[in-house]
Amino acid sequence: MEYVLYPKSEIDSRTKRLQSVMGDLDGAMIFQSVNMCYFSGTAQEGLVYIQRDGEPIVMARKSFARARQESPLDVKPLKNLRTLKEDLGISSRARVGLELDVLPYNNYARVARALGDAKLVDISEEIRHIRSVKSAFELGLVEEAARILDAGIASVPDFIEEGMREIDLASRVESVMKSMGHQGSLRFRRFNGIVPLGHLMSGPDASVPSFLASPTGGKGTSLLFPQGPGFRKIRRNEPVFVDFAGIYNGYIADSTRIFSLGPLPAKMQDAFHASLEILEALSRELRPGRTGRELYNLSESMGAELGYADFLGGPPGNKCGFVGHGVGLELDEYPVIGPLDHPIHSNMTIAMEPKMIYPGIGVVGLEDTFLTGESKATSLTKLPREIIQV
Amino acid sequence: MEYVLYPKSEIDSRTKRLQSVMGDLDGAMIFQSVNMCYFSGTAQEGLVYIQRDGEPIVMARKSFARARQESPLDVKPLKNLRTLKEDLGISSRARVGLELDVLPYNNYARVARALGDAKLVDISEEIRHIRSVKSAFELGLVEEAARILDAGIASVPDFIEEGMREIDLASRVESVMKSMGHQGSLRFRRFNGIVPLGHLMSGPDASVPSFLASPTGGKGTSLLFPQGPGFRKIRRNEPVFVDFAGIYNGYIADSTRIFSLGPLPAKMQDAFHASLEILEALSRELRPGRTGRELYNLSESMGAELGYADFLGGPPGNKCGFVGHGVGLELDEYPVIGPLDHPIHSNMTIAMEPKMIYPGIGVVGLEDTFLTGESKATSLTKLPREIIQV
Repeated sequence: MEYVLYPKSEIDSRTKRLQSVMGDLDGAMIFQSVNMCYFSGTAQEGLVYIQRDGEPIVMARKSFARARQESPLDVKPLKNLRTLKEDLGISSRARVGLELDVLPYNNYARVARALGDAKLVDISEEIRHIRSVKSAFELGLVEEAARILDAGIASVPDFIEEGMREIDLASRVESVMKSMGHQGSLRFRRFNGIVPLGHLMSGPDASVPSFLASPTGGKGTSLLFPQGPGFRKIRRNEPVFVDFAGIYNGYIADSTRIFSLGPLPAKMQDAFHASLEILEALSRELRPGRTGRELYNLSESMGAELGYADFLGGPPGNKCGFVGHGVGLELDEYPVIGPLDHPIHSNMTIAMEPKMIYPGIGVVGLEDTFLTGESKATSLTKLPREIIQV
Repeated sequence: MEYVLYPKSEIDSRTKRLQSVMGDLDGAMIFQSVNMCYFSGTAQEGLVYIQRDGEPIVMARKSFARARQESPLDVKPLKNLRTLKEDLGISSRARVGLELDVLPYNNYARVARALGDAKLVDISEEIRHIRSVKSAFELGLVEEAARILDAGIASVPDFIEEGMREIDLASRVESVMKSMGHQGSLRFRRFNGIVPLGHLMSGPDASVPSFLASPTGGKGTSLLFPQGPGFRKIRRNEPVFVDFAGIYNGYIADSTRIFSLGPLPAKMQDAFHASLEILEALSRELRPGRTGRELYNLSESMGAELGYADFLGGPPGNKCGFVGHGVGLELDEYPVIGPLDHPIHSNMTIAMEPKMIYPGIGVVGLEDTFLTGESKATSLTKLPREIIQV
């Protein structure tokens, strides 16, 4: 367990990939701490400016000393946004890329004032696609996240008891993962996207819908945290839905297993096996050349054929609209395995999650995080794909 | 422990307060889930539009059904932002307030396109000041958050051991609070503001600086989570800094206590007592009529008089620049007890935190969450203000 710094070679290759898709931009100015860390090796307060050619310029304010220790690039002090144009040598009428998907309007306006006549352009889609393909260095971290995650989910039988509240079982699983270095906080990119470390919900409460772009919601503990585990007590013979994110040095793996105290009703077992069949078909088809849309269509058509059109990914009118998503430094990374033409490449880490939602009854299904290879995908999360009856 | 819904009367009074500061605006359109819940009683995906007069209009997409159950207002389905102007009856050349401090640029641009010739104005400061004064209903929730927090911090002696890692002790404290209904996730409003549930750090690692607008940083577990507890093992005769947020139904209380295995060096004990003196002076002066700036100046001048100018709030060049902050639905609420003229009113909940940072050695100090009254403030967090030697 260690605090891993990014090697210079890693930063260099990320920089080159961004420079290669810059089109007619003079540079990209990165402020969001996740992207900043990705391109500079530090998430301290500041920015990284990546020009079309040459080394990125990192500027940090708080903590400047720490940014210097962490980043393999040269770090300059950031004093005032107002002198940014001069400090970065940005020319008149430059075209500068910004992360307009996450940058708050007021922050954007301050940058726009500082850059005067520059033309500001959204570069967020390009960055998300770059981040979706992982290096060997990154894959090592996702593999460790998967190992932590498997250990967390595998610990459920050590703790689960009839009458135990969802929040208490979730807290036990989180403690196991934290003891292995899990940071205890999960990042979601989308606006308003807060997430607990896991969706651990029992019986009907697993089917309670919520705002999150996810097949499941859950009651949660309050209006302000209306998803994930709630106060419900776990009962016998109902599916206990256990969906967590493992994290190691910022990198995420995502997996779901179903537990039960005593056997589940046959209907739930059948639905679980339909999920398994869809997951395995998706994993066979997950390879370069395919698109998110093709895989999503495969999932939807199999769901319909198997008789689960009204349950897969949510009930009619409340379907989540995707069956998988990239994972990396954020939970909602690209590619989206939904109705978008996101291409599948090698070395993507993709969570596939065909789940059957029965409103008022419960949720069954599976999720594993796959690594795409040249011709086939392998699962990084490795727990047996079965209902774990305790 | 229960999932508390907001009474209609609570929403009505919040609405009226916003309407009373709208100036020449036709309305305010709220998207951030915290503000949306504050003004509508639901944090589901959607928006609330508060016109100058009359009832707010809540529109929700996911989950519409849940938004209907939660909000005491009438909830309409949100289909498409493009028809928003018509759906909300917004007139030509209307002036509409938006939360420009948090709304991402691309979201802003979509709203701007939908509203055509409307003039969009920042209403975020007004909302933050409104939220800084709490109702009796809200105070009940902050009091419960303080009770949960006190129980969490008071549990440290049950778990702390020489050689235990910071992350493991923090995980135990968090489990205690979660078993009492703490949601396990803490909101920070500022861009890039991620926070752990607590800053629990030992000895020199408590003094490691980080990006967060906070007196303390901490190493944390990775580049991407570079603050809070890390892997360091707790030793004897060093300050163990324990700063957590309690949360109940979204509402936050904030407190810090110092623990130690065996006695602390005299220098650390002296610095702790200087913090105590400053905290008690601040609490005596914390009342309506004062401003954040006056209280901050009091803290700074006492710090200098007592000989702690180079340690209070951080070392020279790395001072955090404030000694307290409002708490409520977010950790960084108004008023700021720093160099700003934020007025103090009755029924504010304010965390005061004079802390002495000794780089390479450790951090000592105190923090309590106060409720302001007509003439004096009372502390909602109630642990004894002493070094807790185990």
